[in-house]
Amino acid sequence: MKYPSALIEDAVNEFARLPGIGRKTALRLVLHLLKQDASAVERFSSSVARMRKEIRYCRQCHNVSDAELCRICSDPSRRATTVCVVESLRDVMAIEATQQFNGQYHVLGGLISPLDGIGPDALHIASLIERIRSGATEELIMALSPTLEGDTTTYYLCKQVADTSVRITALSRGVAFGGELEYADELTLARSLQNRQPVENLVRQGL
Amino acid sequence: MKYPSALIEDAVNEFARLPGIGRKTALRLVLHLLKQDASAVERFSSSVARMRKEIRYCRQCHNVSDAELCRICSDPSRRATTVCVVESLRDVMAIEATQQFNGQYHVLGGLISPLDGIGPDALHIASLIERIRSGATEELIMALSPTLEGDTTTYYLCKQVADTSVRITALSRGVAFGGELEYADELTLARSLQNRQPVENLVRQGL
Repeated sequence: MKYPSALIEDAVNEFARLPGIGRKTALRLVLHLLKQDASAVERFSSSVARMRKEIRYCRQCHNVSDAELCRICSDPSRRATTVCVVESLRDVMAIEATQQFNGQYHVLGGLISPLDGIGPDALHIASLIERIRSGATEELIMALSPTLEGDTTTYYLCKQVADTSVRITALSRGVAFGGELEYADELTLARSLQNRQPVENLVRQGL
Repeated sequence: MKYPSALIEDAVNEFARLPGIGRKTALRLVLHLLKQDASAVERFSSSVARMRKEIRYCRQCHNVSDAELCRICSDPSRRATTVCVVESLRDVMAIEATQQFNGQYHVLGGLISPLDGIGPDALHIASLIERIRSGATEELIMALSPTLEGDTTTYYLCKQVADTSVRITALSRGVAFGGELEYADELTLARSLQNRQPVENLVRQGL
């Protein structure tokens, strides 16, 4: 396709790089922006630029944050004794949407996956173990996707903190096997959280 | 949905303003950008900002352009005697994609629509009439949508330049290629029948 302007071609190319956006959709978005007020387009582009430039990560839970401590970790009404371990920011948002959890999080930034060459050192696991050993944590809720990688990560963490008094629970398996956590519906996710069980139970049931 | 960061929330809001993009897709795009290199995100946002800020419109055909005259109007290999009248930039791109047209364009910027309060003055019609009266144009191809608005606009233009020697043609209407005859609407089918052509013509054009 030949574009009438290099400026439009550049913008279309950039939009088309985004996941799930082809060249036709990219063109539609660009032509839409072209018709908007200059100030609206300026707001769009600067919000994207600022987001990437100014985003920080919470020094305690590694979730994205606007400050050194994220909104949740700095909220005194949230119980610091319960820590929910998740893979990513999207899982935090999915669990927050259930409005069933009043503790804090720990975002691992991924799951242990030997096949992909992702070991514990590539994740925020050391800081989680330190967080547990420093004493405040009473319960660790493993809210990882029910996949091989999620289970491997849960096992690894259990072994690492076996000598502490922390109680480790996992989401009940209301979540479909092989599914991605972020696509679970809110009710299922809420139930899974309410019915969380000691990890020993899952092991006894063949996981 | 509660976002972990105001920066992310802003960016999601901006993406969700785009046509066809909901909040879930917006979040997916934002999280994708968050994982990209800072330079890639900078390139994305600045290409969008530049596009809106620096875009110009061709002083002859009103198509978007990087310069005072667009790529097509300033191309000496394109015949200036044939002017194809279209509604928008997208129609220019669609016709260019056929690689069958070697003339110039005139982008009206819309169609006459009394119901929507869009009269001739809201469109680039005066400049088209001036362009025709200034003499170079021999043929005007009306390539407007076969709708009430498109036909109204064509009629209006014909009346305005009736006293000139310019030849006015319109895109042929008929059954679409690859379409099933039984699904063609009655009006289209009736017109196609009235305007039937010798089979030799179709054969000559590669059917």
